Order: sequence, then structure tokens, then C-alpha cells
Amino acid sequence: MGISPLIDRLIEAFQVLPGVGPKGAQRMTLQLLQHNRAGGGVLAATLAEAIETVGHCQACRTLCEQPLCRYCESPERDDSQVCIVESPADIIAIEQAGGFRGRYFVLHGHLSPIDRIGPEELGLEELLSRVRKLQPAEVILATNATVEGEATAHYIGELLKDDVSTITRIAHGVPLGGELEYIDGGTIVHALQGRRSIN
Amino acid sequence: MGISPLIDRLIEAFQVLPGVGPKGAQRMTLQLLQHNRAGGGVLAATLAEAIETVGHCQACRTLCEQPLCRYCESPERDDSQVCIVESPADIIAIEQAGGFRGRYFVLHGHLSPIDRIGPEELGLEELLSRVRKLQPAEVILATNATVEGEATAHYIGELLKDDVSTITRIAHGVPLGGELEYIDGGTIVHALQGRRSIN
Repeated sequence: MGISPLIDRLIEAFQVLPGVGPKGAQRMTLQLLQHNRAGGGVLAATLAEAIETVGHCQACRTLCEQPLCRYCESPERDDSQVCIVESPADIIAIEQAGGFRGRYFVLHGHLSPIDRIGPEELGLEELLSRVRKLQPAEVILATNATVEGEATAHYIGELLKDDVSTITRIAHGVPLGGELEYIDGGTIVHALQGRRSIN
Repeated sequence: MGISPLIDRLIEAFQVLPGVGPKGAQRMTLQLLQHNRAGGGVLAATLAEAIETVGHCQACRTLCEQPLCRYCESPERDDSQVCIVESPADIIAIEQAGGFRGRYFVLHGHLSPIDRIGPEELGLEELLSRVRKLQPAEVILATNATVEGEATAHYIGELLKDDVSTITRIAHGVPLGGELEYIDGGTIVHALQGRRSIN
């Protein structure tokens, strides 16, 4: 029980945010009410607007408020490569890394029979028709390096094998700056199997 | 640059929250849009309502949406003790600790000439009239154990000395569970000076 019913409700409401518990929510509430009502007002309005209007890109299924996201809409992107990822956050990570100029497709998850997430939930029919329309030379499977991510990549590889000549999986290995001593065994096995000639 | 202009704006807006940087804001944005639009809607509406309606309690100056906060309004609280704190968060901490049943007064800061925060900004005239009205037997100075908090407590002690018979300062010492080995020297000096007879 805090100071007033409305402030208590706001502290409660902030706890929907990931990583925010009662103490953090209280700090956010008091900080905005005491020191930054303008910023809080912008946050409330922008959040309401986003929840109301953000849907999925008709082409790649990522989150966006327009019919097509900026990557699907851009004429400067390369149709010959399609990168398949699990979530919109992965697109942000790849774009921030730079170097990829192709198109995307977002699964919004991975195959998980126990959670009843099958090919339909991942939009694999849409993926198939998108691939048939774009006719990319290469599809890059950039699902996570987890058991579920691997299984999903394998399933999609099988699904697309008649339509795409080159299907690739992102490399698994030692991350940059990683010291072998502290890397887990599975990663080292992958790094050895995936070794490349440098001369 | 994220996925869409609106999502970028929302990621930006979340960064007004204390302790939230670009990565955390991105995680909050995607989490709400992907998995919890209902909770996000409640957060947006509650935040907007709070920013619109929360003001200050007319008696103790804490944040609340009614004319009087729940502590000033309650007939069950003890008028004979008034506890003076720097912020509404301090009231929450004291109430959660339990044991205090008196009234409060919130300074919203401490004396700080460099930031142009003087007696007027801290509402010390309102404090004086409140003390004269309540005529408490004791005023407890619960400002922070910082240089500014001490100075503010000293100033208020002087201000109220003709109107209140007992003016006290909260104890400074070793916190519960604290091991002497790891406590700073200033705290140990206070703990020794404030020692009490136990027989």
C-alpha cells in the first residue's frame, strides 16, 4: 500500500514491464510524477498510440504501424537474400551490426509442440509464398542457436529446399573477444566443425 | 534506427524512466507489443491519468490525487507526532517498516543554495502553520543521513524550537545485519556516539 490509490495502480501497472519489480516500479512512478511529467505524458501517449496502431508488416510479419515495414518497402534492399529470424528484436540486432542488405521474414517464435506453436503460428505458408514471389538466390536461417531454434531452422530448410537453391544457416562458434578457456564445450565443437581455411 | 518510426519513438519515450537505457527500452517496447498489449494499454491509461490528476496533499505535501492523502485524512493517525521527510518514497519506506502511526510532512528535497532550493521551496511556512495547528508533542526529523539532510534537519529544528517541546532526529548507526568490518568510519562514529544503555 503506497500513498494513494491511483499511485498504487500506477506502480502496479509499471510491473508489466520486463525486469521491473515493485521497487523499480515505485521509483519510475515517483520519478515521473515528481520530476518529469512532460516525459511521462509523451510515454503514455506514444504507448497508447503504438498499442492501438502497430500491427504486422504484410510482407515480413515484423511489427510496424504501416502496411509494409521500412525494410520491405525500401527499393534499395536486395531481393536475392531473405533472412529468417525469430523476432523483430533480431532484425534490430542484425541491422545495428550492419552488412546485411537483403529482406527479412519474422517467425515470431520457434516450433514448440508443447506450447502448440506449429508451422501455422510461425506463418510458414506466408513464408513459402513470399519466397516463391521474391525468388531469392539465398535464404539465411538466422533462428537462435538453441535446440528449438535449430529444430525450426531444420524444418524450414526442408520446407524451402525445392524452391531455393542456396539455404544457409548462420555460423556458430566462438564470439568475438571470446576466450576459449571460458567457452562452453558445445560452442567449441561447433567452432571446430565450422573451421575454415585461411590460406 | 529500429523497425518503424512509431516503434522508434516508443523506444525513445521509455528512456525517460530511471535506469532504462536503449536496450532496456527496446526490450520493454517489443515485450508489450508482442506479448502484453492489454497490460501496456493499462499502463498507458494509468500513467496518463496520474500525470493529469496527481497533485500534492494540502496538508502534508505528499503526492496524491485527492485534496488530502490517506495519512492526513485518516482519523486513526496520531496527531501528536509529525515526521518530516524529504520525499514521498520515504513515507512508503516508513509505512512498510511499520511502527509509526503519526502524521507526515514532505519537503520534496533538502536545502541546497546552489540549486536555489531554500525554505520557501521546501514549504517550511506551510510546515510551521501545520505544526501550530496540530500542536504535536513531538516532531521527528527523518531527512536523509547526508550532509544536505543534516543541514536541513538542523534548520528545521531551529525553526520549530519555539513551537514544539520535543524535536528528535532519527538514529544513525550500524544497519541491521551490518557487519562492523564493512561499515564506514562515519557511521561507526555515530553508532558509538549514539550508544544506549541496555541494562
